[in-house]
Amino acid sequence: MAALSLPQYADVEKAHRRIGSYIHRTPVLTSSYFNRLTGGELFFKCENFQKVGAFKFRGACNAVMSLSKSEGEKGIITHSSGNHAQAVALAARMNGYQATIVMPENAPKVKVNAVREYGAEIVFCESTIQARDETAQKIIAETGATFIHPYNHPAVIAGQGTAAKELLEEQPDLDIIIAPVGGGGLISGTAITAKHLNPKISIIGAEPERADDAFRSFHSGKIEPVLRTDTVADGLRTSLGELTFQVIQTHLDDIVTVSEESIIRDMRAVWERMKIIIEPSCSVPLSAILDKKVDVKGKKVGIILTGGNVDLENLPW
Amino acid sequence: MAALSLPQYADVEKAHRRIGSYIHRTPVLTSSYFNRLTGGELFFKCENFQKVGAFKFRGACNAVMSLSKSEGEKGIITHSSGNHAQAVALAARMNGYQATIVMPENAPKVKVNAVREYGAEIVFCESTIQARDETAQKIIAETGATFIHPYNHPAVIAGQGTAAKELLEEQPDLDIIIAPVGGGGLISGTAITAKHLNPKISIIGAEPERADDAFRSFHSGKIEPVLRTDTVADGLRTSLGELTFQVIQTHLDDIVTVSEESIIRDMRAVWERMKIIIEPSCSVPLSAILDKKVDVKGKKVGIILTGGNVDLENLPW
Repeated sequence: MAALSLPQYADVEKAHRRIGSYIHRTPVLTSSYFNRLTGGELFFKCENFQKVGAFKFRGACNAVMSLSKSEGEKGIITHSSGNHAQAVALAARMNGYQATIVMPENAPKVKVNAVREYGAEIVFCESTIQARDETAQKIIAETGATFIHPYNHPAVIAGQGTAAKELLEEQPDLDIIIAPVGGGGLISGTAITAKHLNPKISIIGAEPERADDAFRSFHSGKIEPVLRTDTVADGLRTSLGELTFQVIQTHLDDIVTVSEESIIRDMRAVWERMKIIIEPSCSVPLSAILDKKVDVKGKKVGIILTGGNVDLENLPW
Repeated sequence: MAALSLPQYADVEKAHRRIGSYIHRTPVLTSSYFNRLTGGELFFKCENFQKVGAFKFRGACNAVMSLSKSEGEKGIITHSSGNHAQAVALAARMNGYQATIVMPENAPKVKVNAVREYGAEIVFCESTIQARDETAQKIIAETGATFIHPYNHPAVIAGQGTAAKELLEEQPDLDIIIAPVGGGGLISGTAITAKHLNPKISIIGAEPERADDAFRSFHSGKIEPVLRTDTVADGLRTSLGELTFQVIQTHLDDIVTVSEESIIRDMRAVWERMKIIIEPSCSVPLSAILDKKVDVKGKKVGIILTGGNVDLENLPW
């Protein structure tokens, strides 16, 4: 495989044209309650309303649609037990390709069913990184399927950038955009897009204290390992990739961290006040504001709400 | 007090002009999932995003703003422990008037606090209809405050009709609109509006089996008493008023009922699939469709989602 190269804004534009009729153009909501509380003007880009319930569909769709027909017909493969799995499954089905998702044996049944519902084949493996990678490699060797990494992939990053592109088309004069950081695909696409459209904009990443590898990497200048992942924000437990770390180093203005208590408090506040369902990862940027890790007084602030896939039997409060 | 007269579409138009800058113009959402499931094309008018989290703000706001300054300055009073209480409290505050809300001593603390947050004075009374009415009458006699009934009130009905007006402005060619029936304010405003704008449209009321007084009244031709109110759809436990019954008799095409199981199932399905928070009353029209009480195959159907005020500690599943 050739060395991965960073996507540029032109790739985000291309991605948007490519996936435009497949994705939802999600609404941007405001809340007078949170504006009053923060002294800023907040604009929530609602990717919880995206297909499969998460922004991940943008990147997966762009990656799948970037394949040639002959590549696609050999199949698509990824490993994930989260939103990326559903995103790849649906993107593949919409393009008439077969997707294979490698999932750990102990993946929650609700997630397994969701992937199956989108028509993907599921291959279970032991719940270790080694088993996961070996299983995927074996299938690739047998079928010639294309692997789509959840974030360390130029077409995925470019696809995720389309959310910020839409947000800035609607609100061109934002001072700040804050997005959560897991593997870094969303924040990378966001930063590439927003800094191109407005070099003066601040791009800030927000992370749980309990999964703060990007925070430490940003400040140390090298990719730091994940030390703990016991955060309620299950979408943010992954570590950075080589590509996403590069973008974070060159494009981000800051990364801040927030506590579990704040994440849960503000997730609930969004449910109660805005009447929308967001998953815990979404409230991480809002917590950063409400806990004054980011000063938004008098500023226009975009927040990307990443998804709404929550197990309603196990709410965190 | 003069005999109450039925509002006309002109009153709905007047109401919309009057309250337009006070209310949210709520979005109309669609769901490919529910379209696939029902064979129809469903348009959800999201009054869960309305101020105070419910359509009730439209009617309360119109009623408050219909008062003369001297009337308003004597104060506004209502009895309710639900969304109407918050709606009157906020509408009064926005117009610089004092609101008094008569609430039963055993009202849930979360509702009492919500009303208080909007600046209303709360007067508690025993939890009987007699105590409630006597308490309100005493305050009216002492202060000259104006009583705003939750639904049996022309300005309230006209205000509720503005939701259907907005829905039809966005989707003029609906074949059917379905709304839940509690006291009948919403369905009355909806019917007056929609039948004026399109005489061929079907207007259907949906009710819980366990609070089916409107269903029975519609079919018997006289106001039937509420026999039981043990439904999870707490917004729909009230009985019809003289005005709303008149509108229902003359304008509705049908009233259908649904089971508790369906209400809870479909409330949850909307949370999971549409990522929005709706209260149980909202899923009653959707249940009527999913349980085939209303045939929507090939039809364009408007559904009014009435509110999103739910106690997140006590979900019904």
